[in-house]
This record gives sequence, structure tokens and C-alpha cells, in this order.
Amino acid sequence: MLSPAIENLVAQLTRLPGVGTRTAHRLAFHLLRTPTDEALALAAALREAKERVRFCADCGNWTEEEICEICRDARRDRSVLCVVEQPADVMSLERTHEYRGLYHVLGGALSPLDGVDPEDLRMDDLFRRVDSNGIGEVVLATNPNTTGEATASFIADRLRGRVRVTRLASGLPVGGDLEYADEVTLGRALSGRREV
Amino acid sequence: MLSPAIENLVAQLTRLPGVGTRTAHRLAFHLLRTPTDEALALAAALREAKERVRFCADCGNWTEEEICEICRDARRDRSVLCVVEQPADVMSLERTHEYRGLYHVLGGALSPLDGVDPEDLRMDDLFRRVDSNGIGEVVLATNPNTTGEATASFIADRLRGRVRVTRLASGLPVGGDLEYADEVTLGRALSGRREV
Repeated sequence: MLSPAIENLVAQLTRLPGVGTRTAHRLAFHLLRTPTDEALALAAALREAKERVRFCADCGNWTEEEICEICRDARRDRSVLCVVEQPADVMSLERTHEYRGLYHVLGGALSPLDGVDPEDLRMDDLFRRVDSNGIGEVVLATNPNTTGEATASFIADRLRGRVRVTRLASGLPVGGDLEYADEVTLGRALSGRREV
Repeated sequence: MLSPAIENLVAQLTRLPGVGTRTAHRLAFHLLRTPTDEALALAAALREAKERVRFCADCGNWTEEEICEICRDARRDRSVLCVVEQPADVMSLERTHEYRGLYHVLGGALSPLDGVDPEDLRMDDLFRRVDSNGIGEVVLATNPNTTGEATASFIADRLRGRVRVTRLASGLPVGGDLEYADEVTLGRALSGRREV
């Protein structure tokens, strides 16, 4: 019913996360109504990002340089390494302003069932960095889900005795409600309780 | 904190309807993780749609030809004209499979406060079509909101006596609940009640 060019745009938009057919249509119709230069600015931004952005040779974060801004920053504490799954996680942690060390982006989490083994992630790089760079602490900040926990355990096992290894605390989200907390989270909050 | 290319992509994505900063970040991160050819397919689809899609010379619907598929379809009833605000509305009506006439897309609704006057819409084209093409009925299918109703009234006034003018029924949405219907909708459902 729609012209092939519109159908194709809708199909491409549907591949985005959280975008169903209805949303894809709404987005496509919006883009068709938008002045051409504005709509093409989105296409250009996407092309440019895909061309320019690559992985930092040190930590695996996104950057347009050889080494990312965080790794180049002389004020960062080079004795602490925070291990995350994705570059997006670096941004989440940076937003807290609580962490001043360096990062190591694995590029995913271990998941043998999906065919993600240690050699598919930046694991060897991690162990090399820990051994060579005077790292005193490794903070495991993989996601608190099955694959993230498995990844954290795997790394902790490998690093035991070589360096101090810590894990992000699990517990109740701030502003949350005891009543709505699932039992696993509440159990973790209980076992991880702290002296006040 | 992010590289300029990513920031720019996020900024462009934020201009899409219903996309806030958080969603824009999620979409941008997804696109960065996506294989380059898939991500560029979206940019290409967008560029192509903006280049190829234009307005049908007859009805104002989107098309890649001079005249759209609906206007070219010999099986459509050429004596009925359905007036809608946007090309997207044509698709909504086509999905019902209840309408077999032609369309006329205004390109918006009258809204003097926003500076949208009759000459900013395809009004003259509409009146010309009604006068010249043996139209027996004009179905007003502008949105059932303030500007849509004002637009419908304006057209009905102009066409009175020249042609049969009808308006889409207002009332309770099918599958809806009397309890949750607003009083205006319920009032319309009442005043528009039909013999069973």
C-alpha cells in the first residue's frame, strides 16, 4: 500500500530496539514530513558515526582517536580498572561521578549457550593489563544478571591472588519500594547489609 | 563525554517524535554496535525515501510516481472523495478495507493561531476537484479534535448545496469501556445513537 521507498524505510526502522511496526510507521511519516535537510542530517550523522567511531586500543571504549579520552586523562587513577560489558556502561558509570579510575570494556558477557566464550571477549587484554600496568584493584561492573554474574565469577577466579577484585553492590534501588522488590534483590540487600 | 560523532547522532535522534535523550542514547549505542552495512542501510533508506517520495498531483498522498496508486486504480469509486489531514491518515483508512473511493490530503488542519490558513492547505484543489470531477459525496475525515473539527466545518460550509457532505462518526471506540470514556465522547455517542 505504501511506496517501496517508504516500505523500506519502515523496515529499516523496525530493526531498531523497541521500535515496532506502528512506531516505525510514525517515525517514517515524521521523517517524510520533515524538511529534507533535517532528515538528511540524521542519515549523515549515522554515516559519520559509523565511519569515525572505533574502539579505544587500550580499554575498548568508543572513541574517534586511537586512545579514548578517559585513558588519555592524566588525572584518572591508573591503579583501578573497572570491567564493564559495553561502552554504554562506561557512560552510565561516568554519570555517577563516583569513579575516577580506568575502564576495561569486554564487548559482551560470557554466554556459552549463545556461543560467547572468553576468546570472543577482550579477556586476554584484561589479564595482560592487570599483569603489566600496576593495577591494584579490579572492579567487576558486569550486569547483575545470569551472564554478567557468570562473567564476573570467571574473571574473579582468574585474578584471585593477583590483585584485589571487587564487585558492584547488589541491593534495593534508591527511591525503590521494599514492597515491589523481587525476592532475589531483597535477599541480596539483606546479605549485603551494612553497619550504620 | 561521548565523542562528537556520537553526540551528533544522539542529537539528531532526539529530534524524532517520542524519542527522549535516554532513548536516543539507546538507539545510538545500538546503531554503533550494529554491523556497518546494516546501520548504513538505514541511512540509505532514509536518503532514498526523501529523494523519491513526493506528493500525488491529484490527491496529495505520498507516491513515487506523478499520480499515486490509489488515484490510478480504475476499480476505485471516483464519485466519493475522502478528505484527510495527512498522508498517514490515508493508510489508516485503507487498513479498514471499508472505503473504496478516492482521497484528498489537505496537508494539515486549519489553525489560525499557528498561522495555518486555508491557503496553506490544499483547499482550492479540493474545491476544484469537487466542481470538476462528478463527485457525489465528500467524506470529511479530519481528526476529531479542535483543529480537525474547525477544518471540517470550514469545508462543509463551502460545499453546502454543491455536494453531499458527510463526517466520520464520533463515539465510543470499539473494545472500549463506558467507565473510561470522557464525557465529550460519551455525549457524542449518545447524540449519534442509532436504531438497532
